[in-house]
Amino acid sequence: MVSELNPAEMAAWRAVIESSQRLLTALDDDLRDTSELNFADYHVLVLLSEAPRRRLRMGELASRLIFSPSRLTYHVGTMEKRGLVSRQPCPDDGRGSEAVLTDAGLSALREAAPHHLHAVRRLFVDDLDEADLAALTKVFTRLGERLTAARAESR
Amino acid sequence: MVSELNPAEMAAWRAVIESSQRLLTALDDDLRDTSELNFADYHVLVLLSEAPRRRLRMGELASRLIFSPSRLTYHVGTMEKRGLVSRQPCPDDGRGSEAVLTDAGLSALREAAPHHLHAVRRLFVDDLDEADLAALTKVFTRLGERLTAARAESR
Repeated sequence: MVSELNPAEMAAWRAVIESSQRLLTALDDDLRDTSELNFADYHVLVLLSEAPRRRLRMGELASRLIFSPSRLTYHVGTMEKRGLVSRQPCPDDGRGSEAVLTDAGLSALREAAPHHLHAVRRLFVDDLDEADLAALTKVFTRLGERLTAARAESR
Repeated sequence: MVSELNPAEMAAWRAVIESSQRLLTALDDDLRDTSELNFADYHVLVLLSEAPRRRLRMGELASRLIFSPSRLTYHVGTMEKRGLVSRQPCPDDGRGSEAVLTDAGLSALREAAPHHLHAVRRLFVDDLDEADLAALTKVFTRLGERLTAARAESR
């Protein structure tokens, strides 16, 4: 059957999907234990901190996080209550709104980042040599581009 | 700072974490659109179908799925209601229980598998050459082993 995976393909696929979920869970647990952020909060704060004027339209943020609009609205709401972000109307579109990083959100990110990046190094990066890093960057960058294109097409 | 990631490490890390989440979301959406299973259901059914006598202790299943015990209890409950699995007391431990694959669960897995594996091929595997597959299997198998050991240690 054309759709079946051969043993080498199945081994790669299962290792990737199981270990990447395991890594995400470990980093989420670690962030919750050592900061007031979970992994999704952290990711929102990173994306906003890198955006021009520290703000992103909600639709753009949902797409970057791969969250449904309703999940993002809920999640940003929980972060707004903690003062980490605020929501403001888009200046160029009265119906849209933007998530904006607050000073408290930036402080929370700066406080959590050293420990979190240390965990990323300890759990993931320290085991990789230069060839591994290059292979991963190539494969997963292409994967992300392909999935983003497939998603845009299906809309 | 020792914990900071250099640009090559950061690029690999972000590509891996963002694209693997994007892949998981795409496969979950695809399964929900084309079967009555979501990705977590599918994963439970695969693990049970591969286990001796098609059954696993709940604790073992939680650990393999990286689910907390309460999340697994809830999830298996939703699958039990749909007749995909049943729960039975462990024969050698009166307090423990096992999840058991039902005939209906096995049928649902067999029905969903061809389309799902085709999606895995189309979205992920088709873009990989032999060297990519070998590199991914090596890196992610080691990562999984390291994370499993770290989790066991922290208990």
